[in-house]
Amino acid sequence: MIPGFVAAAVTAGIKPSGKPDMALVVNTGPEFVAAGVFTRNRVVASPVKLTRKAVADGRLVAVVYNSGNANACNGAQGDADAAAVVRRVADAIGCEAADVAACSTGLIGEQLPLDLMLDAVDPLVAGLGDHADAAAEAIMTTDTVRKTTLVTHAGGWSLAGMGKGVGMMAPSLATMLVCLTTDASITPDMADAALRQATAVTFDRLDIDGSTSTNDTVLLLASGASGITPTQQELDEAVREACADLAQQMQADAEGVTKRVAVTVTGTTTDDMALNAARTIARDNLFQCAMFGSDPNWGRTLAAVGMADADMDPEKISVYFNNQAVCIDSCGTPGARDVDLTGVDIDVVVDLGTGGPGQATIRTTDLSLGYVEFNSAYST
Amino acid sequence: MIPGFVAAAVTAGIKPSGKPDMALVVNTGPEFVAAGVFTRNRVVASPVKLTRKAVADGRLVAVVYNSGNANACNGAQGDADAAAVVRRVADAIGCEAADVAACSTGLIGEQLPLDLMLDAVDPLVAGLGDHADAAAEAIMTTDTVRKTTLVTHAGGWSLAGMGKGVGMMAPSLATMLVCLTTDASITPDMADAALRQATAVTFDRLDIDGSTSTNDTVLLLASGASGITPTQQELDEAVREACADLAQQMQADAEGVTKRVAVTVTGTTTDDMALNAARTIARDNLFQCAMFGSDPNWGRTLAAVGMADADMDPEKISVYFNNQAVCIDSCGTPGARDVDLTGVDIDVVVDLGTGGPGQATIRTTDLSLGYVEFNSAYST
Repeated sequence: MIPGFVAAAVTAGIKPSGKPDMALVVNTGPEFVAAGVFTRNRVVASPVKLTRKAVADGRLVAVVYNSGNANACNGAQGDADAAAVVRRVADAIGCEAADVAACSTGLIGEQLPLDLMLDAVDPLVAGLGDHADAAAEAIMTTDTVRKTTLVTHAGGWSLAGMGKGVGMMAPSLATMLVCLTTDASITPDMADAALRQATAVTFDRLDIDGSTSTNDTVLLLASGASGITPTQQELDEAVREACADLAQQMQADAEGVTKRVAVTVTGTTTDDMALNAARTIARDNLFQCAMFGSDPNWGRTLAAVGMADADMDPEKISVYFNNQAVCIDSCGTPGARDVDLTGVDIDVVVDLGTGGPGQATIRTTDLSLGYVEFNSAYST
Repeated sequence: MIPGFVAAAVTAGIKPSGKPDMALVVNTGPEFVAAGVFTRNRVVASPVKLTRKAVADGRLVAVVYNSGNANACNGAQGDADAAAVVRRVADAIGCEAADVAACSTGLIGEQLPLDLMLDAVDPLVAGLGDHADAAAEAIMTTDTVRKTTLVTHAGGWSLAGMGKGVGMMAPSLATMLVCLTTDASITPDMADAALRQATAVTFDRLDIDGSTSTNDTVLLLASGASGITPTQQELDEAVREACADLAQQMQADAEGVTKRVAVTVTGTTTDDMALNAARTIARDNLFQCAMFGSDPNWGRTLAAVGMADADMDPEKISVYFNNQAVCIDSCGTPGARDVDLTGVDIDVVVDLGTGGPGQATIRTTDLSLGYVEFNSAYST
C-alpha cells in the first residue's frame, strides 16, 4: 500500500456468486486531500450524488465500494441507503460522514441489500491493512481480471490505483470506478487539476460502445505521508501515467473483446474536430463489426467519418490500416483488400485531407458476437 | 405500373450471385417532373453527385439503377463511369443525359464493371414495360424481400414506390434507394415539398444502427398522365403513406433483425428534443442488445437517455415496455423484471417528466448475433 493508506475487502452477500463485493479504502493521514471526476450522464446513481457533495471541499477520509448493485434509479430510498452505509463507515472509523465517499457498480434499478451491507462494515474496518489487491478484486463486476497500477516517483513519493470497467464505456470516462492514492503532500487544487487533465486524455478517450454509465467515479486521495510536495507537472505526469495504464487494462478486458483498436484522426482544423471524428469512427457499429471480422473494409471508415463534425475534404481523405495505405484521396489503393488485420491490435489512421494540424486518438474494441451474447441477457 | 411509366430489369453480371443487378425506370410523360432527397453524409458516391445535379431543375426522364457496387470512393474514375452509364441510357431512350439520374448500391470502393454495365443498357431499354416488380428485385443487395408500395387516390391518380435498404440506416434516410412514381400532374415545387415532409417523418425516423450511407437517394417522378392535379395536402399524404410503408418494410427486413422496436419519447420541451432522445435510446448498443435478449432491463433505457440533448427531470423519468410501467419517477416498479418482451414487436415509451409537449418516435431493431455475423465479413 501507499504510505498513509489501508484497505480491506469482504463478501457482504450482494453478488449471487458469493465473491467479494465490498471494499474500503481509508486515508490515515496526516493529510486528507481528495479530488473527483464523475459521469456526465444526467441520470446519476445515488452514490455519485453523495460523493460529489462529499468531495466538494477537497477532503475525504475514506471511500466505501460495493459491486453487484449500482444503486442507480432507486429514488429517495437509494439516496437514503447510500447515506446509511456511509454513516455506518464513518462511525466505525471515527470520522465525519461528510468525509466518506461511496461508489457502487452493478445492475441498475435494484434496491441495495442494506442490512447485508451494514453488517459488513464492522468486518471491513476490522480487516483494514495492506489489502489493495483484495480491494481491487472486490470492485470487479464482469471484469475478468483485477486492474491495478503503481507509479513510483524518483523524488520519493508514489501513486497507486485500482479500477474496474468493461462495458458501457463512453463518452465521458467509461463505466468505471477508479481510486488513486498517493503519499504526496498536495493541495486540493493540485489534486483536482491533475485528475482533470489526466482523465481528459485517458479514460475520456476510451470509447467501447458509445454507452455512458450512471456511476462513473474517479477519485484521487492524497495522504501527504511522504512529506514531499511534487511540482504540478510531476503530479500531472504521474496521474496521467496511472490513468493511461488503467485505461489500457480496461480496453483489453472489455466485454467480448477480441481486438484492441486505436483510431487516430489527423489533417483537420482542431484537436477537438479530430477527437469528434475519431469517436465517430470508433463508435460506428459497422466499422466495429468489420474489425471483429479482420475485414479491411475501409469504405466503412469513410462512410462513418463523413458524418463527423470536423473539417474535411471529402475527395482527399486517406486511410491507413496497420501503417498500410488502403485509401488515398478517397480512393482505394491496389491491394487494400489484402491487408492483414488478423492480429489482436489494429491501428487505424485517417487523414481528413485539409492539411490542418488537428489530431486525436480514440481507443476502442471490436463489436463481437461475445459482446452481443453477453449484453443480451445481463439482467436475466 | 403507374400510367406514364415503364420499367425493366436485367442481369448485367455485377453481382457474383448472377442475380438481376440493373434496373431502369422511364417516365413516358406527358410531364417529366422530379424531386430528390439525398444522404447527409459528406462522403457521397459518384451517382449521388450526378443525380443531385440532374434533378436540380425539377426534371428527370429516367433513372438507371445498379446493385452489387456502390460506386462510392472511386474518385474521378467513379464520376466518369457514372456519367458514361447515364449517357448511354440517354442515347438509347433518346433524351438529354442531364435528364437521367443514376443510383448505385453495394460495396464501397470497388470500381464499376463499366463494360458489363454499358452492354446491359440496350437489353434494358428493349425490355421496358410493365416490370415494376422485376426492377424492385434488381435493386436488392442483402434485402431478403423486394419492397414495393402502392397508394391509390380516390381522385383518380395513384402513387407507387420501390425501395431497398437493410443496414447502415441512420440518421438521415437510411441506406436506401427509393423510387416513387405518380401519374398526378404536379409542379417540381409540389414534388419537392411533398418528398421533404414525407422523408422527414418516415425514413429519417428509422434508425437501425446509427450508421449513415454514402448512397441514400429517394426520388419522386411525376408523369402527369392522369391529367389530375391533387392539392398539396393530398399529395403530401400519399407520399407520406408510401414512404411510411416502405420504411416499415425496411425495418422488418433489417440485417439480422429479430425484433421491431418503436421508441417514443414524451414529456420534454420540443419535438426536436424528443427526437434526439428517442434516437439516443434507439441507437444505444446496450439497449439494443437487451431487446435482442427480450430482457426488460429498463435501467439501460435510463442510462442511455441521460446522455440525450433534451430537457428532462432526472428524478421524474418514466418508462413503459409494451404499455406496462417498468419505471416511474426514475424508480423501478414491482414486477418490472417480469414484463414479457418475447414477441417480435416491442413498444418502448419514455416520459422525460418535464410536462412539456415535445414528442417523437424512432423505429429501430435489436442488435443481434445475426447483425454482427453478417457485418463482420461483408467485403470478404
